[in-house]
Amino acid sequence: MVEVLSPLFHLSLNPASASPLYKQLSDAIESLIQCGNLQAGDRLPATRELAGRLGLNRTTVSAAYAALERSGLLEGQVGRGSFVSVRSGSGPTLPFEPSRLNWNAVFPAQEPPPPSAGASIEISFASSRPHEESFPLAEFRRLANEVLQKDSIAEILQLGSPYGYAPLRRYLLSQSQDTSIARAGDDLLITNGCQQALDLLSRLLASSGKRTIVVEDPAYHGLVRVLERSGCVLVPVPVDEGGMDIAALEQALAGQGACAVVVTPSFQNPTGATLSLERRKAIVHLAQRSGAVLIENDIYSELRYEETALPTLKALDGTGNTILLRSYSKIAFPGLRVGWVVAPRPVVARLAEAKQWADLHSDHLSQAILLRFAESGELARHLERTCREGRERLRAALEACGRFLPPGTRWTRPEGGMSLWVELPAPLKADVLLAAAQKRGIDFLPGSYFSSRAAHRRALRLSFGGLPPASIIRGIEILGTVATEVLTGDSGSLEPAMALV
Amino acid sequence: MVEVLSPLFHLSLNPASASPLYKQLSDAIESLIQCGNLQAGDRLPATRELAGRLGLNRTTVSAAYAALERSGLLEGQVGRGSFVSVRSGSGPTLPFEPSRLNWNAVFPAQEPPPPSAGASIEISFASSRPHEESFPLAEFRRLANEVLQKDSIAEILQLGSPYGYAPLRRYLLSQSQDTSIARAGDDLLITNGCQQALDLLSRLLASSGKRTIVVEDPAYHGLVRVLERSGCVLVPVPVDEGGMDIAALEQALAGQGACAVVVTPSFQNPTGATLSLERRKAIVHLAQRSGAVLIENDIYSELRYEETALPTLKALDGTGNTILLRSYSKIAFPGLRVGWVVAPRPVVARLAEAKQWADLHSDHLSQAILLRFAESGELARHLERTCREGRERLRAALEACGRFLPPGTRWTRPEGGMSLWVELPAPLKADVLLAAAQKRGIDFLPGSYFSSRAAHRRALRLSFGGLPPASIIRGIEILGTVATEVLTGDSGSLEPAMALV
Repeated sequence: MVEVLSPLFHLSLNPASASPLYKQLSDAIESLIQCGNLQAGDRLPATRELAGRLGLNRTTVSAAYAALERSGLLEGQVGRGSFVSVRSGSGPTLPFEPSRLNWNAVFPAQEPPPPSAGASIEISFASSRPHEESFPLAEFRRLANEVLQKDSIAEILQLGSPYGYAPLRRYLLSQSQDTSIARAGDDLLITNGCQQALDLLSRLLASSGKRTIVVEDPAYHGLVRVLERSGCVLVPVPVDEGGMDIAALEQALAGQGACAVVVTPSFQNPTGATLSLERRKAIVHLAQRSGAVLIENDIYSELRYEETALPTLKALDGTGNTILLRSYSKIAFPGLRVGWVVAPRPVVARLAEAKQWADLHSDHLSQAILLRFAESGELARHLERTCREGRERLRAALEACGRFLPPGTRWTRPEGGMSLWVELPAPLKADVLLAAAQKRGIDFLPGSYFSSRAAHRRALRLSFGGLPPASIIRGIEILGTVATEVLTGDSGSLEPAMALV
Repeated sequence: MVEVLSPLFHLSLNPASASPLYKQLSDAIESLIQCGNLQAGDRLPATRELAGRLGLNRTTVSAAYAALERSGLLEGQVGRGSFVSVRSGSGPTLPFEPSRLNWNAVFPAQEPPPPSAGASIEISFASSRPHEESFPLAEFRRLANEVLQKDSIAEILQLGSPYGYAPLRRYLLSQSQDTSIARAGDDLLITNGCQQALDLLSRLLASSGKRTIVVEDPAYHGLVRVLERSGCVLVPVPVDEGGMDIAALEQALAGQGACAVVVTPSFQNPTGATLSLERRKAIVHLAQRSGAVLIENDIYSELRYEETALPTLKALDGTGNTILLRSYSKIAFPGLRVGWVVAPRPVVARLAEAKQWADLHSDHLSQAILLRFAESGELARHLERTCREGRERLRAALEACGRFLPPGTRWTRPEGGMSLWVELPAPLKADVLLAAAQKRGIDFLPGSYFSSRAAHRRALRLSFGGLPPASIIRGIEILGTVATEVLTGDSGSLEPAMALV
């Protein structure tokens, strides 16, 4: 039984309101009870005291208390005052016995949960992301603080445009023009990383009836999911070490009526494959001939560790029709969600519409800081270091695969990026290996995750970008040991036990 | 004719590659031409010089140049060296004459463009946002810098969870539990402002077949658009000064089979209306009885300038079924995109799935800074100032409406928030007034914008939250003058000219 004074003494009633003062007061008290600020058993102030504090007539307070007693929210006890009724409880009194909805029926699951490790993971190859130990924190702090100190911070904190923070947008567009990526008639939209660009494009394609989409097989799982969720039909075209199969693409466009193609020309996720110049030209040509929308996911191309750079499809496409996606997430900081789309002006206008209703605009502060990071030259310096480190990681991964994976295993040999693709020798399946590897502290994503048809059961993706070379080698060594054990039957069945399925 | 040396001298070839060195070199040069790094007329280095720089045999370089001459990309001039061929142009040579797609046919417009002012605008009532002059910049800079200096900055810059930045999520969930908003079984997801929460929910409703949705009429245009775009059917329920009409809601749920209700109980956008406690209870009760999903858009409730606070629908709903949306955008900085959803755990799990494929997760840095802003007590102090200023702005707006708007005009009298709703006397229409007002430097959004059926032609929203009192008074004075002129025929026709339609 606690005497709670403050909530009532802070009430502010409006004498000019159409609602009488006693009613305003009883409503306010009821609200306090419903909000939990007044609880069952709490004593209310005496009517004289409350009237004095609020500058009300005492009869007004009495009338309010009486009304609340009638509705059962207060109980008067002779000589002791008014108390919040016990049966007022913490919820409202409703003439109906409500219950929790069966939410799993209201919103059925659309996809299986991602594979997750029950055991504790020491070395994870599961995420295609940079290593945070390589973040240039001192430079980041200095440049972020420069942005904070400028007068423009007020504008940065204010509502902005769905197209993005104007200074960053101008910078990126001018950079795209300088590198022959953006042509006359192109425009640029800033998104929350490349994932949002894929989402906005998926919705644009679905809502305009262009639902049959060519994707690489295997493809980045976030692309597969977002297209499927927006109601698109996927036409998988195989990827080999040289990227998308051109004959299969031609067949998909001509025979299956696909109206859009999403392709990652450099260091494709998950295979690490890079399209040769010839294949790039062929893809551009096929898209031009069929009138298909060509979407180029180009977030890895600057992470090239070997050989020389190849032109983007966007640069090769003389029509300018190609829609190019880029991002700072892989080359700088994935926790700051900034990517962009370079595309013909009408496409960008439609995307900006979709962006506005998706989340109004991207976060301003990160856009401003990343602009400063790029303009200052720190991004270029960081990228140089990242590529140097990436080269070491890639080499460590390839060498370890050669040393430790069991005979018959095949893997890709990327020239950059963050991932490589491993195909296990029969009869070993990736989910079986995963279950055994997780028990030894190693995690990765199985190949079936990168397919709309749960194909690639024997494959897996090893993302090495976020790991130091020693961990990469150690992780692949353990993986090799586990794979050999499973293959030779040392760890039991080749299929997971029923209970795990 | 410019001698461009650097791009070729930086090439890095791989002697271990399966591709011969001359082929690697010619491919690299072709790429540089296609990328625009080498342009028509550019002279290439002499074979001896390039061979020296790259550590190649001179015959390798000669073989590469010869291959490029055969494919027409280079031209040799006796005694002068090799040049990028003029017909190599800036694009590829394709056996097909491609053209720009007709993008307006590929992606047709889904909605008319928003009303925009051709003239220059001095005072804009068009945006429901805070005033940037009120931002506490010194405090923001100090707290943001604290966040930057901490060790956790590396984690902030790294990839995160679709549920949001864990420390902010824990803080908001605990705050929601302390204020009786979150119950046992509830969870919390961080979104890019409230708009993204509406978007994710729209998609969840649409994909689970729950497409018939009750919305307020008039309603926030961003809600109307996002529901329409995801394929939902809107059932508009009228809003009067006391908020949503309960009888009409009952009819919509029982008669029209609506399966979800979106409601803004406090200072509704655009009307400024607030639901009484009785109506709140009635809405909760009706949703419970019909099993409809109840979505509470509660982003304005803390901007209360008069009277006392009322409990949220979420707090009144003993089942805990209500889905509550909140945001820092209106009470802090709209340029930092951070809002959140409090809902039963299975709903949050589905939203997190949708969030992951929409943009992986919300920007980390702003989440971390807003957490510091809230925890430090600066948010509460800022909110107190904002409410004090908001009260002055609201009073200035209401007083100016009384003084300057022509007889017969009606307007709402909100007790908080950022907007009020004006109904013009017949025969004056809002689009006619808007056209005339924009010429005098005044902007607002016409009522038709807040309806799925282009209703409310005689109404308009005045958003006063982002304007100082003097501008509010001046703006409404000009609006009153223009309205009177249009009504008395001083400025011509009451309908816009054909060319404007």
